[in-house]
Amino acid sequence: MRNCHRELARWVEPLGAQVQIDAAGNFRGVYPAAQPDAPRLLIGSHLDTVPNAGAYDGTLGVVLAVALLEELRGRRLPFGIEVVGFSEEEGVRFGTPFIGSRALVGRLDQELLNLCDARGISVRKAIEEFGLNPRDIPHAELSSDTLGYLEFHIEQGPVLEELNLPLAAVEAIAGQTRLEFTFLGHANHAGTTPMHLRRDAIAAAAEWISAVERAAQEVPGLVATVGKIEAKPGVTNVIAGEARLTLDVRHPSDEVRIRAVGDLTRQAQAIATRRGLSVQHGTLLSQDAVAMDTFLVGEIEQAIVKTGSKPHWMASGAGHDAMILAEKVPSAMIFLRTPGGISHDPTESVAQEDVEKAIECGLHLLDRLAASPQFYKRTNRA
Amino acid sequence: MRNCHRELARWVEPLGAQVQIDAAGNFRGVYPAAQPDAPRLLIGSHLDTVPNAGAYDGTLGVVLAVALLEELRGRRLPFGIEVVGFSEEEGVRFGTPFIGSRALVGRLDQELLNLCDARGISVRKAIEEFGLNPRDIPHAELSSDTLGYLEFHIEQGPVLEELNLPLAAVEAIAGQTRLEFTFLGHANHAGTTPMHLRRDAIAAAAEWISAVERAAQEVPGLVATVGKIEAKPGVTNVIAGEARLTLDVRHPSDEVRIRAVGDLTRQAQAIATRRGLSVQHGTLLSQDAVAMDTFLVGEIEQAIVKTGSKPHWMASGAGHDAMILAEKVPSAMIFLRTPGGISHDPTESVAQEDVEKAIECGLHLLDRLAASPQFYKRTNRA
Repeated sequence: MRNCHRELARWVEPLGAQVQIDAAGNFRGVYPAAQPDAPRLLIGSHLDTVPNAGAYDGTLGVVLAVALLEELRGRRLPFGIEVVGFSEEEGVRFGTPFIGSRALVGRLDQELLNLCDARGISVRKAIEEFGLNPRDIPHAELSSDTLGYLEFHIEQGPVLEELNLPLAAVEAIAGQTRLEFTFLGHANHAGTTPMHLRRDAIAAAAEWISAVERAAQEVPGLVATVGKIEAKPGVTNVIAGEARLTLDVRHPSDEVRIRAVGDLTRQAQAIATRRGLSVQHGTLLSQDAVAMDTFLVGEIEQAIVKTGSKPHWMASGAGHDAMILAEKVPSAMIFLRTPGGISHDPTESVAQEDVEKAIECGLHLLDRLAASPQFYKRTNRA
Repeated sequence: MRNCHRELARWVEPLGAQVQIDAAGNFRGVYPAAQPDAPRLLIGSHLDTVPNAGAYDGTLGVVLAVALLEELRGRRLPFGIEVVGFSEEEGVRFGTPFIGSRALVGRLDQELLNLCDARGISVRKAIEEFGLNPRDIPHAELSSDTLGYLEFHIEQGPVLEELNLPLAAVEAIAGQTRLEFTFLGHANHAGTTPMHLRRDAIAAAAEWISAVERAAQEVPGLVATVGKIEAKPGVTNVIAGEARLTLDVRHPSDEVRIRAVGDLTRQAQAIATRRGLSVQHGTLLSQDAVAMDTFLVGEIEQAIVKTGSKPHWMASGAGHDAMILAEKVPSAMIFLRTPGGISHDPTESVAQEDVEKAIECGLHLLDRLAASPQFYKRTNRA
């Protein structure tokens, strides 16, 4: 990460940006506005990724922010641009995501600082070992002159590829609920128990998995996934007495998501009852949807149109730093088409033409914002 | 096992039986016939069981053979009775079942003797350590004067309890096929991949599990079980790219079973193809059905009627020593009702009245066979 910060500094300092690493390990490079006391727009993404990952998730968004500074060729705007490279977005090391971006909204608190990695090293200790001072974390918070946050990111899904479009404006980050369900039946001999006398937990789970799939197919924008299933005793010649499985439900509308979770929970109960089984469930995670800033999303749409592409609005099914920043400042994202929808994998890729379109779109967007005094003069929310 | 053999000997020797432990560790106690050169009928079951088992699986069948000798009260029949207590029916220690009974049909061969347990001790070595000589195994084979084999055994299933009957004549041991299926789809992000662009291995497997259940429900006597399922990567927020599951199919008719396996394999293929997945399968076990001896089954039916119970013929879904003995001599089984169908569990039980019925049935059967010179004079098959 230190090498990465050094390399980014080597890129932005010659363009006139002032670099610092904040106490949460985020890269911050401020490219000044035309006037000294002007507000600033943050553009960035995260610099960390997962093990065995590709080259673009997160990093491309930071590189695109740098590319926009380059393309300005010294031109100054009515607002400054702060290039941000967040640390610890994925949550790999400490099991909790968005550690870097939480510092900007004042949520890198004592509890989070006390979280430990697998070797027992806390976030606080890791920050100190990196050569930073956890006491300076409050200085990492968004300054009161922050206009908003813009994030370029690969889609990490197949939607834009299927639509044959290079870019999309992200209108919302979908809310998500994760639950665990356990069907409890009766383990029995697979040879001696006739079909009508079985209380088979795998068969009940299978019926419900099909119901989950059907329910999600019927509601636009809803995704529901059973990604994990385990049966006990889990032996070829024994009818399963227990099946434990997870459910992940996401939708940009909290109401739709919560209704779907309720319906699917009732269906699990109905299937279990009809079959003489019982079912238990518990919630592992429940996270509301986050809307992106309507003004910024509209401006992104117009900027995409200006590149000659058809505009497309979509929700992000995955979480992003923009979700955290949106708590305090107007935030929006631009998705880039992801070949095969493949991400978190070494074969993750992006087309050069799509990156060119993204830069072009970004420049049009900066021009539009520079021509919108109602944007850069509006009262900030930070 | 040594204590068990000693106890059995203490029971049968005072009744006039001659005891020996054969080289495969089977208990053999011969109760002589009225005439010195008369043939013999074997009655027994196995003395071993599984870990954490109940008290009746196997053992009850041996105890019932002893009870019949007791109930004869010194009376001699036109044929001798050999009480057999088989060793190693379950296959717990060496992973292969029926080691004891195979010795009686000449199939405890070198390959089987070389099998090793988890600590690397071979069957041969275990026999030696028990104080027996593996070279004597050929002497354990059925003598040429063997009339047949009769086995009492708990049903280990819920059928007799549901029919409210204490006993059944077993007409066949069902054949079985065990297979492993692997659905191969594409692992993807559960949040960013819309429903219509998924190749979800768990969803495909679930659809097929329901098809398996339906197919078995439609064919009388057919049982089909998916008892084991594993998904990869098996994570809450990732669509499964792989689902591996087992299929266990049993039916007294080999034709019906083989047709069902073919149908279910084709359905797996059709489901995979329609969903853009592939499926692979392999056969783990394929074992034909074994018919019990028609004459003996008919005599058992009449003996059950004589006890005042409604006779019932049924197939055994589980394997038994009688399946092995049937290779060489007329064999048949009598099932006893198993409360709750529960077996291989400490709560396994049997009603005292049902055991009394079984003894009564056994005595009627011995009387019928003693009154059937066509039985005890017919050419043996050993």
